[in-house]
Amino acid sequence: MLKLAIFSVFYLLSICTPGNSQNQDSLVIRKIFSEALTDNTAYKNLEFLCTKIGGRICGSPQAAKAVEWVKHVLDGMGLDTVYLQETSVRHWVRGEMEVAIVNPEKASSYKLQACALGGSIGTGEKGLSANVIEVKEFDDLAKLGRQNISGKIVFFNHPADPVFYTTFNAYGGAVAFRARGAVQAARYGAIAAVVRSATLAHDEFPHTGIMHYADTVEKIPAIAISTNDADKLSNGLKNDPNLSLFIRLTCKELPEVVSYNVIGEIRGTDNADQIIAFGGHLDSWELGQGAHDDGTGVIQSIEVLRLFKALHIRPRHTLRAVAFMDEEMEQRGAKRYTESAQQMINSRNSILDQYKGDSLLKGAKFRQPAEYIGNHIAAIEADRGGFTPLGFSIDASDTQLKKIQSWKSLLLPYGLYFLEKGGSGVDVSGLKKFGVPVIGLVTDSQRYFDYHHAGSDNFDKVHPRELQLGSASIAALVYLIDFYGL
Amino acid sequence: MLKLAIFSVFYLLSICTPGNSQNQDSLVIRKIFSEALTDNTAYKNLEFLCTKIGGRICGSPQAAKAVEWVKHVLDGMGLDTVYLQETSVRHWVRGEMEVAIVNPEKASSYKLQACALGGSIGTGEKGLSANVIEVKEFDDLAKLGRQNISGKIVFFNHPADPVFYTTFNAYGGAVAFRARGAVQAARYGAIAAVVRSATLAHDEFPHTGIMHYADTVEKIPAIAISTNDADKLSNGLKNDPNLSLFIRLTCKELPEVVSYNVIGEIRGTDNADQIIAFGGHLDSWELGQGAHDDGTGVIQSIEVLRLFKALHIRPRHTLRAVAFMDEEMEQRGAKRYTESAQQMINSRNSILDQYKGDSLLKGAKFRQPAEYIGNHIAAIEADRGGFTPLGFSIDASDTQLKKIQSWKSLLLPYGLYFLEKGGSGVDVSGLKKFGVPVIGLVTDSQRYFDYHHAGSDNFDKVHPRELQLGSASIAALVYLIDFYGL
Repeated sequence: MLKLAIFSVFYLLSICTPGNSQNQDSLVIRKIFSEALTDNTAYKNLEFLCTKIGGRICGSPQAAKAVEWVKHVLDGMGLDTVYLQETSVRHWVRGEMEVAIVNPEKASSYKLQACALGGSIGTGEKGLSANVIEVKEFDDLAKLGRQNISGKIVFFNHPADPVFYTTFNAYGGAVAFRARGAVQAARYGAIAAVVRSATLAHDEFPHTGIMHYADTVEKIPAIAISTNDADKLSNGLKNDPNLSLFIRLTCKELPEVVSYNVIGEIRGTDNADQIIAFGGHLDSWELGQGAHDDGTGVIQSIEVLRLFKALHIRPRHTLRAVAFMDEEMEQRGAKRYTESAQQMINSRNSILDQYKGDSLLKGAKFRQPAEYIGNHIAAIEADRGGFTPLGFSIDASDTQLKKIQSWKSLLLPYGLYFLEKGGSGVDVSGLKKFGVPVIGLVTDSQRYFDYHHAGSDNFDKVHPRELQLGSASIAALVYLIDFYGL
Repeated sequence: MLKLAIFSVFYLLSICTPGNSQNQDSLVIRKIFSEALTDNTAYKNLEFLCTKIGGRICGSPQAAKAVEWVKHVLDGMGLDTVYLQETSVRHWVRGEMEVAIVNPEKASSYKLQACALGGSIGTGEKGLSANVIEVKEFDDLAKLGRQNISGKIVFFNHPADPVFYTTFNAYGGAVAFRARGAVQAARYGAIAAVVRSATLAHDEFPHTGIMHYADTVEKIPAIAISTNDADKLSNGLKNDPNLSLFIRLTCKELPEVVSYNVIGEIRGTDNADQIIAFGGHLDSWELGQGAHDDGTGVIQSIEVLRLFKALHIRPRHTLRAVAFMDEEMEQRGAKRYTESAQQMINSRNSILDQYKGDSLLKGAKFRQPAEYIGNHIAAIEADRGGFTPLGFSIDASDTQLKKIQSWKSLLLPYGLYFLEKGGSGVDVSGLKKFGVPVIGLVTDSQRYFDYHHAGSDNFDKVHPRELQLGSASIAALVYLIDFYGL
């Protein structure tokens, strides 16, 4: 027989309309922000993650340590449930410090600030050396043709365009060369790819990030160089089109390893089987400390739970913080999480199918054991850096969007003016196919790509107040969704 | 007879309503932002002002150099008018590096990171030494009474309150002790005042700023100490209420000197006698480079003129960039500027009085020589740091406020969501009494008071995009005011 407890849920919505409790909401949100801005737990947590564990690409010992540490932190918070969710992940290692030298045999030789792109093959111990052909667009490859590219190193020098207000647009126009440059260059016989870092900063930091191979195209090594060195190399090529570049990478792919999403929950008082999830990704590139990408998102998600506990706000729905594993390479953690949601829905549907003639089951809600990935009423992602929050980007139905927008007057005093339709984030967007409204915290993007995937993405770049405004912003939205539904 | 040219002005408003030209406006504003975000003139100018001239309190050789340099920059921009506006200013000098040592005669002695408050008297060459009495509020002085204060150093340890979203509110709650602490302490016989720096940062930087004496109260020296050292001193006093503090300041007031506001203009095509002014202050405290306070405001104001020139936008009204002198001590530059506006208005009124029966003069506008401070249709101040702009704080009539708010859809794509009633800034607020709408650029305040008046307010703290978003924001508003009036 039906083993799951079935109970009717009487939403308090009808008696607690926003109009009636606007003042109450305003007070709760004020408390959330006050607590966040006076307590330094989150900032100290971020300091530990960044400086004691450091950069933590999936599969690395640092990522394993981060999993253990986040679980330890959650275990110490008096939550209702803390658990790991297993997934296998790639284990790519950078190896020795990358070497890239222009005209290595000449007196005029100089080193470039370079790093392997994530997932690149190595060059072999001896490295490789070749002439360089510079292109700005993929189309340039076809124009040049195999006769001008074969045997050479292709240098994709496509600067991020500074004219956009949102730097994500600038990044979006430059990142394709990082992701697909090696494959496109290899089609024309290139032996390696060099990519200008996908950043608006003019400095000495190379920015890594995932690159993809294609099964049908020979794999060639790929590196990023700093924007300053991209300019330097470009000028060098103008003076001497025959200059040679030596590259040595010892990066390689090791066998996959087991890793985990880390999850902590406060069970809901009324709707424990309904989940409001919020998370960031625990893995990071390893050149820096993974502070803004995405240490802050993980720490903010944990902090949301701490805020509810500290302020004794008992949520009606289950609040779930998720530290996703492996956002940077293949989003295995997010996929695992989404599969669980699918499994849960399948399981519920099969139960509903069995009982579909039973009027008692109409509108029934099922209480699931905590280890189930429950029915999400919303999922929020924080993965745009721990900068001053500006609002939320909402991928939901028009009705849901309007409902969130109806809370604007409660959020605006904290600078959260942006409540618009838009993408959420790669870790929660998979839930959308189940009809879950997915939401991304939007932050001031001006500085984000200065540090993104670079050796400079360190704890010292995170401002404690900006970090905590983000935590409080998510907590405020979670509070409103919990109280009014979505 | 009437020597001034009189001409009627036919505003284009009736044919160019926002509805008709919204797309046109949107394109112009897009161009303004694109130009600002791709050109580095302003950033290079700020670098020069900060690193080649540096901190520049009024009366100092650096302030004089800054006046000369700004005039030189304006002279090179192909403007219609560039001129100086003379004012006398105080000439307070910090003297030798300040010394503050706890228990100077003991093995346990330690130095505090300290600086004289602006305008403080010195201690004399030998310094002074006394016990310390800590208070949090002014009321504590009355409670303690003269018997507990006389002959001692009063330590005002009132932390800025972090709970506010806007850090200006936190600052507002702490700055009174800097401004009036010495006077209040002296009333009870204290021999010096020590003030916790008015900042939310926890670090080693003391923050200076103006302090005021009262004619009827004995002047005593006043210093600020870093927040970390304020905590340290407070803890020290808990362990040993009899600890002594040695202070040595050689700061002093020298005779006043002549200085200048620096003004550059693009003359309007239709309404040259009507002015849209925008400015920041050229003087700064001298512990750091005066980058955010207020190098950025000056550089942004110059940049607004450059943007109009570069984009060949011919303004209808005269656009005027003002680098105000002496905001930090007595706002002599702003007062001088406002007096000139008064003189101009008096002069115009006397002309109007002469001709008030003449129907030809009804609604007449007078073209004034450029050196006159004209009739302002708006004045905008940028003095809240060169951080990401969020909008404008508007001190104007409801009609004017609504008009600016009607442009929201044009400004929102650049994050300028805040268009609300509020204070402008101390350099332009004096124009309000003449009915001029005065406006302040509102920026993200989270980091401002970390650097404000401290040795850390340096060029490296300014982000080139944040700086230029500010320039473009002012330019966009100026463009709209110029086109539609206010």
